Amino acid sequence: MSIPTLLVLDADPLPRLGRLTGRVRVEHADASTLAERLPSADVLLVWDFASHAVREAWPGEGPRPRWVHTASAGVDHLLCPELAASDTVVTNARGVFDRPIAEYVAALVLAFAKDLPRTLELQRERTWRHRETRRVAGTRAVVVGSGPIGRAVAGTLEALGVRTALAGRTARAGVHGPEDLDRLLAGADWVIAAAPLTEETRGMFDARRFGMMRPSAYFVNIGRGQLVDEEALAGALRGRWIAGAALDVFETEPLPPDGPLWEVPGLVVSPHMSGDTVGWRDELGAQFVELFELWAAGEPLVNVVDKQRGYVPGH
Amino acid sequence: MSIPTLLVLDADPLPRLGRLTGRVRVEHADASTLAERLPSADVLLVWDFASHAVREAWPGEGPRPRWVHTASAGVDHLLCPELAASDTVVTNARGVFDRPIAEYVAALVLAFAKDLPRTLELQRERTWRHRETRRVAGTRAVVVGSGPIGRAVAGTLEALGVRTALAGRTARAGVHGPEDLDRLLAGADWVIAAAPLTEETRGMFDARRFGMMRPSAYFVNIGRGQLVDEEALAGALRGRWIAGAALDVFETEPLPPDGPLWEVPGLVVSPHMSGDTVGWRDELGAQFVELFELWAAGEPLVNVVDKQRGYVPGH
Repeated sequence: MSIPTLLVLDADPLPRLGRLTGRVRVEHADASTLAERLPSADVLLVWDFASHAVREAWPGEGPRPRWVHTASAGVDHLLCPELAASDTVVTNARGVFDRPIAEYVAALVLAFAKDLPRTLELQRERTWRHRETRRVAGTRAVVVGSGPIGRAVAGTLEALGVRTALAGRTARAGVHGPEDLDRLLAGADWVIAAAPLTEETRGMFDARRFGMMRPSAYFVNIGRGQLVDEEALAGALRGRWIAGAALDVFETEPLPPDGPLWEVPGLVVSPHMSGDTVGWRDELGAQFVELFELWAAGEPLVNVVDKQRGYVPGH
Repeated sequence: MSIPTLLVLDADPLPRLGRLTGRVRVEHADASTLAERLPSADVLLVWDFASHAVREAWPGEGPRPRWVHTASAGVDHLLCPELAASDTVVTNARGVFDRPIAEYVAALVLAFAKDLPRTLELQRERTWRHRETRRVAGTRAVVVGSGPIGRAVAGTLEALGVRTALAGRTARAGVHGPEDLDRLLAGADWVIAAAPLTEETRGMFDARRFGMMRPSAYFVNIGRGQLVDEEALAGALRGRWIAGAALDVFETEPLPPDGPLWEVPGLVVSPHMSGDTVGWRDELGAQFVELFELWAAGEPLVNVVDKQRGYVPGH
């Protein structure tokens, strides 16, 4: 086999390809050059996981890479009908973000339970005001999304004594199906969105669903912004339908400075960072190298996305 | 036995004595009347656990209550040499605060790891700024104080994957003695103060000990304010000897509005609330009722404080 061409959809900083150095011909592309360079690539590494360039460039002319890897858990930003229908294999960064995101969700749940945002506000006002806070042990959570991230979130919340239900696309052992979702939402103290973005999940957290949650419930989204009707969430918070929320992902990222979400009462806004612990880029690079070794040896890839469903099917 | 007199050192709201109603003669006192009413009391309930009135009134004339219960974990506010030397039994609220405080510490540890205070600041500034955060799993904590609160804190941190060492007054199974403390502090990512206030622990977190902690370490005090040299801590934070700290307890409570601690960089200030989850007063009241039933039946009390050591000896 001749030296394969690896096309990297770039983002700063570039990936460290470690032991692949010299074993692949590396080319680079950005959104403006991706379409013209795709035909010469054997493999496409979507390092700029926030870009929609693949979805726009893919339905073009000429040969397509046989394998596309994205340095992200979600694949919604790159799947287009033509890629889904092709025989190109798509893999993702399954596994890298699970524990960091689980810890991030635990941080938000505990911060809400202990009223930490208000504590920081009162500190700025130099005001000593005792409040009673909540115990998280014994409360109930529902985690929507039963992939590795959702399962890691559930495991971490369970470790804190939170009684946690997982909800997924289909009912199976340990996972509730869609038929249970509304009932689970209505009884939950914590609702965690950890689902992939698919046609089934788009906009699933809407006014109807916020309306059935408890007034004392908190909502946390670490999945994809498009899972949530942001206007409905803002309305639910303003109307005190729910007690609070945290969004790490948004319909539009970065969130524009003049956007309405920054100042919604009870809403914590963070810049899509829940999975990104120190060393995460190196982990993503190392994971790609491992997959590349499999691919170069002709062995079956892991983390292979079901392009119809839009995620890596699991247990 | 005639109806015993229960003297309550009051605080709002008063305790609910439940099934004791009618079975005790309840009298009330505040700091100004405690001394004159102590001789007529069989039992003293220190419901105002923030008051030092007992320590001031006890060395007086006349009979003393045979039993003093405080609705707090710490007993430093009431122990005076005369009470310590007497045959009056002192009990505390051991057990009520363990899990809430453990969750509170976990909330602070995760908030620091995930840079949550900065996230809230950036949100106020409508600024989208991605940062890399820390994983807590695999980090190291030392919990100073090996009583039920310290052990609960350690258990909760361990559940989050934090490798946690307990340090106590004496080395025993699962607990490091004072001879290990400096080495543990020097290697810890998280230092949690959960010790009782005794002559041995007063001021133990001083410039020398902050100076040996890692620049990336965070310090959390949920024990007693007097464990910490507050000026030394402020200096350590200003000098970036350590990365941050959270104090829930202070030398002077409430913290005065013009005090210097409110604005120390990297310091989170909260108003002595770490153990106070919804329903905590009812739990404290119910715990006293349980103890009273033992006392009235002539059975041995539990949660009995070793008045020389200043805490309830454990395992």
